[in-house]
Parts: sequence; structure tokens; C-alpha cells
Amino acid sequence: MATAPILIRSEGSTLRDRVVAEIIRLIESGAYQPGDRVPSVRKLSHDWGVSLTTVLEAYRALENQGWIEARPQSGFYVRVRLVKPVAEPAISRPPCEPHGVAVSDLISQMLQGVGDPEVVQLGAAVPNPELLPTRRLHQIMASIVRRQGSLVQRYDFPPGCRPLRVQIAQRLVASGCAITPEEIVTTVGCMEALHLALSATCRPGDTVAIESPIFYGVLQAIEHLGLRALEIPAHPRTGLSLEALRLALDEMPVHAVLTISNFNNPLGCTVPGVRKRDLVELLAAREIPLIEDDLYGNLHHGETRPHTCKAFDRHGLVLLCSSFSKELAPGHRVGWIAPGRFQRRVESIKIATTCATPALPQYALAEFLASGGYDHHLRRARRAYRQSLALMAQAVAEHFPEGTCVTQPEGGFVLWAEMPEGVDALALTRAAKCERISVAPGPLFSARGMYGNCVRLSAAEWSPRVERAVARLGELAHQH
Amino acid sequence: MATAPILIRSEGSTLRDRVVAEIIRLIESGAYQPGDRVPSVRKLSHDWGVSLTTVLEAYRALENQGWIEARPQSGFYVRVRLVKPVAEPAISRPPCEPHGVAVSDLISQMLQGVGDPEVVQLGAAVPNPELLPTRRLHQIMASIVRRQGSLVQRYDFPPGCRPLRVQIAQRLVASGCAITPEEIVTTVGCMEALHLALSATCRPGDTVAIESPIFYGVLQAIEHLGLRALEIPAHPRTGLSLEALRLALDEMPVHAVLTISNFNNPLGCTVPGVRKRDLVELLAAREIPLIEDDLYGNLHHGETRPHTCKAFDRHGLVLLCSSFSKELAPGHRVGWIAPGRFQRRVESIKIATTCATPALPQYALAEFLASGGYDHHLRRARRAYRQSLALMAQAVAEHFPEGTCVTQPEGGFVLWAEMPEGVDALALTRAAKCERISVAPGPLFSARGMYGNCVRLSAAEWSPRVERAVARLGELAHQH
Repeated sequence: MATAPILIRSEGSTLRDRVVAEIIRLIESGAYQPGDRVPSVRKLSHDWGVSLTTVLEAYRALENQGWIEARPQSGFYVRVRLVKPVAEPAISRPPCEPHGVAVSDLISQMLQGVGDPEVVQLGAAVPNPELLPTRRLHQIMASIVRRQGSLVQRYDFPPGCRPLRVQIAQRLVASGCAITPEEIVTTVGCMEALHLALSATCRPGDTVAIESPIFYGVLQAIEHLGLRALEIPAHPRTGLSLEALRLALDEMPVHAVLTISNFNNPLGCTVPGVRKRDLVELLAAREIPLIEDDLYGNLHHGETRPHTCKAFDRHGLVLLCSSFSKELAPGHRVGWIAPGRFQRRVESIKIATTCATPALPQYALAEFLASGGYDHHLRRARRAYRQSLALMAQAVAEHFPEGTCVTQPEGGFVLWAEMPEGVDALALTRAAKCERISVAPGPLFSARGMYGNCVRLSAAEWSPRVERAVARLGELAHQH
Repeated sequence: MATAPILIRSEGSTLRDRVVAEIIRLIESGAYQPGDRVPSVRKLSHDWGVSLTTVLEAYRALENQGWIEARPQSGFYVRVRLVKPVAEPAISRPPCEPHGVAVSDLISQMLQGVGDPEVVQLGAAVPNPELLPTRRLHQIMASIVRRQGSLVQRYDFPPGCRPLRVQIAQRLVASGCAITPEEIVTTVGCMEALHLALSATCRPGDTVAIESPIFYGVLQAIEHLGLRALEIPAHPRTGLSLEALRLALDEMPVHAVLTISNFNNPLGCTVPGVRKRDLVELLAAREIPLIEDDLYGNLHHGETRPHTCKAFDRHGLVLLCSSFSKELAPGHRVGWIAPGRFQRRVESIKIATTCATPALPQYALAEFLASGGYDHHLRRARRAYRQSLALMAQAVAEHFPEGTCVTQPEGGFVLWAEMPEGVDALALTRAAKCERISVAPGPLFSARGMYGNCVRLSAAEWSPRVERAVARLGELAHQH
């Protein structure tokens, strides 16, 4: 029994993973439609020359991910998608007035349960561990340690590990940028990059315009730095409203604008290319720095990677921030910033806050990126997240109260659900916590505690356990 | 030829290192006095049952470290110490008035050459790589990765790695403290700990009282946070002048006090135990937080570890900061803070700035600390630093202009040299840079750019190359 050629062409994945990937490819191509029976375990084992166990494991994985379902005494079938249409939320409508921020306590509460295996984690946006190349990174790390033991014996002062900056510069071409390694500073995750960008462009009391809703970490950084947040409406497809932003800029001083431009957290929206250019030009005309968070940019579900605003930056006014936490390894805490004309200030604040970025993880990621396994890895992650987001959106449509609207992100792995007026997301969050389900309540994502009827759900994983948790959340939402 | 029992009793060090350690023990005990001939290579090889190569390597190491010297056709001799008495600097006299800070540019200039193997590094206080347990840490890391690969797949949110906090709590007993693991938060090095402590206790515009001179990183953090520095006189033996501090507190609002209490950087001074208690009580009576940097506390040259101020803290007002950068691995960036009553605020600012501390280095250090090799390792480092500091002080006395005063630290590995009035340390630094010698000029250590005739020298390593650099610095100092 010879293994089929298709299954041995790709390095770095197990046979089981290859079987999973190929079956998904067949389903996506329409070769097997919803309701179709997929080949029996015995047949596929024979046809593709892999063991029964491998096929069975692959089918279990496909079942867990929601692609197929087992029917008793009959075999495995492509799962029928619910066709219940799901409405998208409308554009947000925050009042146009700067506001102080105080979200820290809510955030601390939410993060308490993270890491507890008993809790179904729909709260924090932690990537699916099965989609991280952990083993390969460990091999690389072990090898670096043998070859270059002295790396950890010194401080890797800003701008940080050059081989990593070289890789980042090369990768940035795909997002429309021509940024040299010298124009990049490595950081302790994207969060430090954002903190440095805000510190370098604003002083206490200044106003930062942000999309609303926005990732709570941004709000917390604004709170910590004593800044004020000006929430700008955001559309669930096209992001930041340029029209609203322009009006706001005409009316009040704004010292920086911060946008999560691609596959925004929590909305999933992406500012279209031409609007990115308009945004950059609008701000350049007023000499206002634009802080761009592109954390999810590589996790596009479609074929092409969207550009960044930085691609349109001619004046060094865009500070582009990102990290490898969502794609490779959250625990390594490796991020970066391309700070444009603020580079010197960013480096000096970096020295005054964390001094240097840990050396070993940077060198390990650099080697992983250079080794060429990255693109393959990303393709796999994108496919999985697209699927789990679709299944979670369907589950929300099925189980949440009538009238619930859900975003349809084209990248990343978070979902924003707007429940009918009157549903109390904070109460729902507390009730869910008692049942060991964590969610991120809407008010976390607003300086004013808006979005009291919304929740953000992380769709990083899909499994029968997650499906049950979403169903249970829906029941609880009916009660709150 | 059987190896002598004394040479095999200690785990984790090479035979060469054991020979070095035993010879140093004999010299320190007086068994071999300065000027005495130590056993010939051949004799020691026979007596202790080790190869000629090992003895020769050990003697070369001892020679590099300045313990012995080779005399042509005669053998190795215990090096004769110069007996030129070295005066200590007097207590510093900064004006009693808060001052803005702007040291970032100077610091960036100094850090440029760090890591360049062509440069003799007397500037940044980087520990001697040979005194770091790098290989052991790497073994542990490789083993953790095999056993607990999932560590890096998630965020290790504050307070951070519990096994490490357990070890820190146990170690803190030696500095007079009873702090539970729950009262500790891990950080990205001591620098982040200090930044968090300043952020948690002060708001922009507030005044922080500090010793003068003080580690430039503290000044840079104060600059970055928009605070004002009030420089308090410090004695080169007993540190912060309580008398001057008390006067200052009576005259103006001070929002926090920051002290490097043990083996201060750059002075090497240690606040005596009873004055630590007085300091803590003085501030407690006025509800002023005390930020204590104990980075060098474990590198005492004498037998006992000095207490921390935190040991006398009854009101949760002391924020104790430290790291493992000077003792174990600067590149891993693992530090910690015991923030007393400010813990919640510290954790929330930590989430808003770096979100989490990298996981793997924390777990590796925890395992190293638990494994028991730490004390042995520290003893070795202390011995080496005591020796290299003594030799550097002598070299300064020998080569620097008449009237130069030098500190006599009882721990750590930095030296502060006060040259005669008129010597321009900044010009000296520039001239030295041209000759590939880096030093830290005095004005880096003051908010007002005082200490224009002082330099800080890192004595982390001693070798003929370092000796030549110090001699050359002395020549340059005569010219500037």
C-alpha cells in the first residue's frame, strides 16, 4: 500500500494533517457538497495508502472542526450548513466628544479565567494552539541555543534582532510597503508596539481618535497614559468612518488616530484600499500621526493580503504595529513597530520601559520565517479560522435571541454579536462565567462603556464543546 | 593518575573552573601570598591528577583575571597588589530643587557600541558572560520545551509564572522579607519593574526624589513619564542622605522616592540596615511610596546579603524591584516587582504596556533556581567581581590623573571614578569611543548633567585587554 503522492508533497505536517487538508480542499471545491457522503474510512485508507487509524483520526478532526458529521451505521457526511441568514450590525454611533477611559477593572476580571482548561475560552483572542508551529519553533530554538549560546548573555538593545527585522521587511512587501530593516524596531508583542506609538506621539491629556468599538487593550493603554479617547463610528465591513473622522478633526484637536485597519478586533472590518489612502492623506494634511495596528493582517481568509495604511505613507507619519502572537507564538511576546519619523523617540522610550526585547524568541522566529515554512503554516491557519468563524456565526444565528446581528469578518478569528436592545452583556458575561464560559462583553470595547448589548466571541477553535458553549450562551442571553 | 577529591565535589562546573576556584581559595586564604610562586603546571597536574592542558588553561584564566602573572623562565606568581591608597569621593551635593530630565540622547549614544566585540565595554553594566550559567539554562530550556511545549502557546498574564514567583519568594527570605508568591509580579527585566513602579505611584508633573548620582535608566524612565527628578545627596558608602531627604520633604511635595539600596549603581554604596528602617519609617509617616531597586543585592562581596528596605515595610508602601539580568541572563529579560499596596495598579499597567512576560525564560529560570545550582553559581560570580573591581580600582589609581577618587563598592561590578575638577568626562568619552573603548560619562547619572568630571566603569571583566583600556583611558584623561 503506497501513500498517495498528494499526501507526501508537503513538509512539516503529519499525514493526518495532510488528509484533513485534502478533504477540506475537496469540500471547498464542491467535489463533495453539504449532505454528500465522504469516502468510507476503509476506502480512503485503501485509495490513499494510509492506515485506518490515520483516516479515522483525520475524520475525527474534520468532525471536530465542523466539516463533516458522523451518522450512525452510515458513515461520514459533509455537514449541512444552516442557511439561516444572519444580519450584520449597523455602523456604530458613538457621541463625538473625547472621553477619559477606565476599563482596567473589567479587563482584569475577564483575563482571570484565561489559561484555565476548565473554562471554554471565548473571551480573550488567544489563537488555536493546534494552529501554531510550536514543535518546529522549539526545534529551531534548541538548535540556536547549541549554535549561538551567547545570544542570551547580552542585551539586545533597540532596534533589536536584525535577522528578524530583515524577515519582517521582506514580508512587508506583501502589504504594499517598502520598509528597510533599519526602519523597524522589535518589541515585546504588539501591545508594547502600541504603547510605544502612543507614548511617542501623545502627551498626557491629549486626545486619540479611535474606531468604536475597539480592542480593549488600546483603551487600557490610553487610560494608563492619561490620554482621552475620541470614539469614531466604524462600519462592520469598511471600518473607520472617514466622514465622521473629518468632521471631528474640524471641530477639536486630535493628537493621533489609532486604527486596526485589517480584520479589526472586534468588528472584523477592513478599511478598503482607497479609503486607507484617503485616511493617510487626510491626516498628513494636518500633520496628525496615524497609529496602525495590523495584528491580524496575515490572517486574511481570501486569496490576497490587504494593504496597510503604511503603504500610502509618504511623510513618515504612520506608525505600523504588529506581532507574531496570533500566528506563531503568543507566549514568546515578539512584536514590532515601523515608527516612521518617530523612530528615535520610540527607541528611547523602549529603553526606558523594557530596555530590550528578549533575544532567543526573536532569533527563533527569524529563522522560522527564513526557513520557508511560514506561508504553508499561514494557509492552514487561515483555512481553519475561516471555517470556525463561519460555524460560530451560524451557531450564534441559531441559538441567540431573534434579532441578533453578527459580523462577517474576512480575516482573523473574532466575531462581534449585537444582541437585541435590552440584553445585558455584562450580566450575560457574569452568568456565563459561573458556567465556565468566558466571553468579552461589549462595554470593554468602548471608552464610554457603550455596546451593553454586544459580545465579542473568539472563534479560534471549533469543537462540539465550543458549540455547546455557544448554544448555552444563547440560552443565557434569552434570560438576560 | 586519579583526580583529587576536591576537584570532583562540585556539580555543574568544568575541571578547569574547579582548579581556578581552588587556587583562588588558596590565595585568598593566604596560603599563597602576593609574590609567592604557585605550583608549577607539571607539579599541580601530578598532585591533583588533572591534565597539563587543564592546569595550563586554569592558569591562563587566573592570569587573565589578574590573580597570577607569568614570569619568563620562572613560572607563575601571585600577582603583587599595588598598595597605592585610593581616596573615595565625598558625598554628592546636588541642589535641592526638582528638575526636568533629558538624558535620552546621551544614553542612545552610549548604547550604540554595546555588543560590538571590537569595543572594550566599560560603559554599559553588562555581566561577564563567563559568569553566567548559560549552558545549564539552555539544557533546562530544551527539557522544558520537550515536556511542556504548550507554554509558549498562551499568554502568561500578570502576575506571571507561578513557579518563578515561588522561587523568588523563597529567595527573598535572605533579604529579610516575608513576601508570598501572590505578592510578586514578573516583568520584562528590572527596567519594566521600575517603569511600572513609577507609573503606578506618580502622575505626569510629579516629583520623584532619587539618589544623586543614579543609574541613567531611572532618569530616562522619569523623563519618559514626564516626571521631575529631585536629586538627593548620596554618600559613596552609606548611600542616600536621610538628613537631606528629610529637609527636602519638609520643603516641597515629593510623590515617590526611588533608591538603589544595595551596591548602588553607580556609587556601589549600601544603605546600612538601620538607616533603611529609618528611611522606610520616614516615608511611611508621610504616606510616600518608596521604590527600591535591589538589582545588585545578591552580588555582595562579603559573607552576608544585605537586607532590603522592603524588609522594614509594614504599610505596603515599598515597591521592591529586581531581575535576574545581572546574575543569570540579561538576554532573557526576566525581572519582578513586589509592589505592595500598588499591586493591582501595577498589574493593570503591565497589561496595558507589555501584556504578558515571555513564558519560556520564566519557567527556565524557575527550574534553575529550584535545582539548587544557583548559590554555587552566585559564589563564583561574587568572587570574580570582587577581584575584578579591586584590580580595576588599582589600575585607575595607577593610571588616572593625580587626585582621582574611586569608590570601594562592597558588591556589584561597577566603579565610580571622580577625576580632578577640569577633566571633561564627556570629551573623554568621545575620545575613548574613537579608540574603541566605551565608558559611561558622569552627566548621564544626573538630571542636571552634574558630575562632568566623573565616569562609571564596568568592572565585569578583567583581562590584559581591559587593563590596557583603563591605562589608555588614564592617558586620555590627562589630555582632557
